Amino acid sequence: MAAERLVVVGGDAAGMAAASHARRLKGPGELAITAFERGHFTSYSACGIPYWVGGSVDGPDALIARTAEEHRARDIDLRLRTEVTELDLDGGRVRTRDLDNGGQESWTGFDKLVLATGARPIRPPLPGIDAPGVHGVQTLDDGQALLDSLTAAEGRRAVVIGAGYIGVEMAEALINRGYRVTVLEAREQPMSTLDPDMGALVHEAMCGLGIETVRGAAVTAVLTDASGRARAVATQDAEYPADVVVLGMGVRPETALAAAAGLPLGESGGLLTDLAMRVRGKEHIWAGGDCVEVLDLVSGRERHIALGTHANKHGQVIGANAAGGYATFPGVVGTAVSKVCDLEIARTGLLERHARAAGLRFVSVTIESTSRAGYYPGARPMHVKMLAERRTGRLLGVQIVGREGAGKRVDIAAVALTAGMTVEQMTTLDLGYAPPFSPVWDPVLVAARKATAAVREAGI
Amino acid sequence: MAAERLVVVGGDAAGMAAASHARRLKGPGELAITAFERGHFTSYSACGIPYWVGGSVDGPDALIARTAEEHRARDIDLRLRTEVTELDLDGGRVRTRDLDNGGQESWTGFDKLVLATGARPIRPPLPGIDAPGVHGVQTLDDGQALLDSLTAAEGRRAVVIGAGYIGVEMAEALINRGYRVTVLEAREQPMSTLDPDMGALVHEAMCGLGIETVRGAAVTAVLTDASGRARAVATQDAEYPADVVVLGMGVRPETALAAAAGLPLGESGGLLTDLAMRVRGKEHIWAGGDCVEVLDLVSGRERHIALGTHANKHGQVIGANAAGGYATFPGVVGTAVSKVCDLEIARTGLLERHARAAGLRFVSVTIESTSRAGYYPGARPMHVKMLAERRTGRLLGVQIVGREGAGKRVDIAAVALTAGMTVEQMTTLDLGYAPPFSPVWDPVLVAARKATAAVREAGI
Repeated sequence: MAAERLVVVGGDAAGMAAASHARRLKGPGELAITAFERGHFTSYSACGIPYWVGGSVDGPDALIARTAEEHRARDIDLRLRTEVTELDLDGGRVRTRDLDNGGQESWTGFDKLVLATGARPIRPPLPGIDAPGVHGVQTLDDGQALLDSLTAAEGRRAVVIGAGYIGVEMAEALINRGYRVTVLEAREQPMSTLDPDMGALVHEAMCGLGIETVRGAAVTAVLTDASGRARAVATQDAEYPADVVVLGMGVRPETALAAAAGLPLGESGGLLTDLAMRVRGKEHIWAGGDCVEVLDLVSGRERHIALGTHANKHGQVIGANAAGGYATFPGVVGTAVSKVCDLEIARTGLLERHARAAGLRFVSVTIESTSRAGYYPGARPMHVKMLAERRTGRLLGVQIVGREGAGKRVDIAAVALTAGMTVEQMTTLDLGYAPPFSPVWDPVLVAARKATAAVREAGI
Repeated sequence: MAAERLVVVGGDAAGMAAASHARRLKGPGELAITAFERGHFTSYSACGIPYWVGGSVDGPDALIARTAEEHRARDIDLRLRTEVTELDLDGGRVRTRDLDNGGQESWTGFDKLVLATGARPIRPPLPGIDAPGVHGVQTLDDGQALLDSLTAAEGRRAVVIGAGYIGVEMAEALINRGYRVTVLEAREQPMSTLDPDMGALVHEAMCGLGIETVRGAAVTAVLTDASGRARAVATQDAEYPADVVVLGMGVRPETALAAAAGLPLGESGGLLTDLAMRVRGKEHIWAGGDCVEVLDLVSGRERHIALGTHANKHGQVIGANAAGGYATFPGVVGTAVSKVCDLEIARTGLLERHARAAGLRFVSVTIESTSRAGYYPGARPMHVKMLAERRTGRLLGVQIVGREGAGKRVDIAAVALTAGMTVEQMTTLDLGYAPPFSPVWDPVLVAARKATAAVREAGI
């Protein structure tokens, strides 16, 4: 019997984790695996790019979890610089173009298909947005291009458009490279992944770190010099000189191929899957990573969340199922953690606007505490905001802004959300306590106590 | 109508939290609160004593959360240096002795009684154990006595008897004071709050930190000099010179008063309570903190766990109930975290011996990972051991030994244990990921994946 043919489109986290896991379960005699990647690299940590650009990580090799050669040694037929240009689902084949050899096209047949086409940085259609010196930071190739640009730049002024995770991480990277950094954020506060009151704390801290952060800044154009290279970013109110411009406005699912093939997409444009990560309604097509929507277990709605840790989990699940095993991905609770210099920023669950959109009535409280016992050296202040459903007291979300020791505390809430705990149940959680690690009441417990009281007072 | 009389025995965390919380709910016209404390201080962090002794915290003031004056300003009649010597439950009164005024005795009547008598360091009945220069570190008075002893000592050699939490924390404190430290542990490994294989990692690390750690060391005597002061510790095999000796063999509940009054005690000698922290079978007597046993939610058995974080929670619950409100303490999962120099040590749930004693069949796995993405600066190795019940896959316990970032990760498992999660459910937890905070698979997730596979392979 001929081996089944598994074709993987996209050679980063989700795609190659799927390929590797499938290979672990089935040998090449049973399953032939071909993977197409249009870039130069496989299985890399895109999340590490800001730290490579900032110089705290040697790249790009350190960011590659598994090289093309390692994949090939495990009987995965990996084709780099090969773009998939069409999915012929009825014909059971994909059309590819070899980007290095004059764009030669060919068809490859499949019995099972994995779509892991990732995401692309948002590039609003503004004058100059595609000029040299304007950089996204989604792939290792992007990172290398930005580093080349930094080397070539004559001045040391950088403008980052957008103050989300990528924006603030890139601000830190550019500060570390000796740049004067301006971050332009269209909304009222940076970090729109937080509620505005928590975002205001981030704004304040960024200013303290020497990062000029302009709020309500609607970018109208990237201005270019005589050579066509970016030289400034214009908003409705001002012009910000820039030797380099970085796009940090987030990403969108890269699903043009899937859309052309008629596969089901959600509101964000991400592919819709079932719990086994199969594309909905398709028996032998799976999708995962930054190109899919995931179920938000708190709101019960599908969302697009581009994160390496989800992509890796998706890949495992897909690999198991594509090789005839069984695994599922139940969904997410919306956890994210980031930092800008020594400021740690974390959230999980719903923001106030998400909770409202989901039809929930809730209370929200914010407390200030410290990362360690107040008297212990290195205790740093930390703000914790907590949302709980009225009447039931069910935890809905947590946001944390602080310094060392703040970020990963969000995991406590992530597990509690997954378990459907109430904030009152959380008040008696048996969390690790010793003066170098926590006050005697962990900040999350302090927030849970205040939220419990708020639920009680609020009634319905 | 006369105010009800609430008497609190013991003025540290549990007792004063109970008094304070009761006062918040009821004014002095309704509830008269009298608290007796035999020491000089109230509401202090005993857990902070090693850091005060080690010089990283100014003490003792910094360790006092609320002074006697602050309590008195809130209409709590607090009597320091006043020891309760007898509970007359039928008569509704306690006998006290004034330790500063010639031991004058008197009786105080109560309508409601709170017992928060704490714990005392284990002092085996060995020759010399009570000699000057041998120190427990349970109270601020103990801490001051040890500091005086360090100042008076001529040499710089310290012996710590016992390598549990207090023992390793005191080892660090004495190293920081410039002492050469030897830790004598009777068992096969230090940290018997971990399984021996994880304790071995602690042993190895302590040796690397320059702390001589002797295993299987059965102490036979404290040897004294001509003045009667401790000069060495003898074991069956050797003599260890000591300018100061610290007892780190853990503590026992201080329940002599309760026992004399016929109150119910558990196997450890701790008071037994119900979920409202009432002494079992007693309507108007509550007990909390280091003098009680708590329900271990994983094994379903009562245990004695002396920890400030539990004491504070107990105090809150007792205060609410004693003031006519309502609160309960559901139990613990056995979380503890500590450090010795830069080594972090944490556990939650059951050890292998606990699981066996509870009649559970289980699998255990250990993994090695890092605190951050492997390529990110400051990534430190971390070992995670995980126990899961056979067949059901229910999480039973986690132990972690590592460096920075290891300790508080145990909270993930503490919440999962509380929620009764299986290790397979844990594999898809949405934990905070970014390279400075975690590898793309958090070490706890890596352990959960391995445990899931082990459960599957083990069958029944």
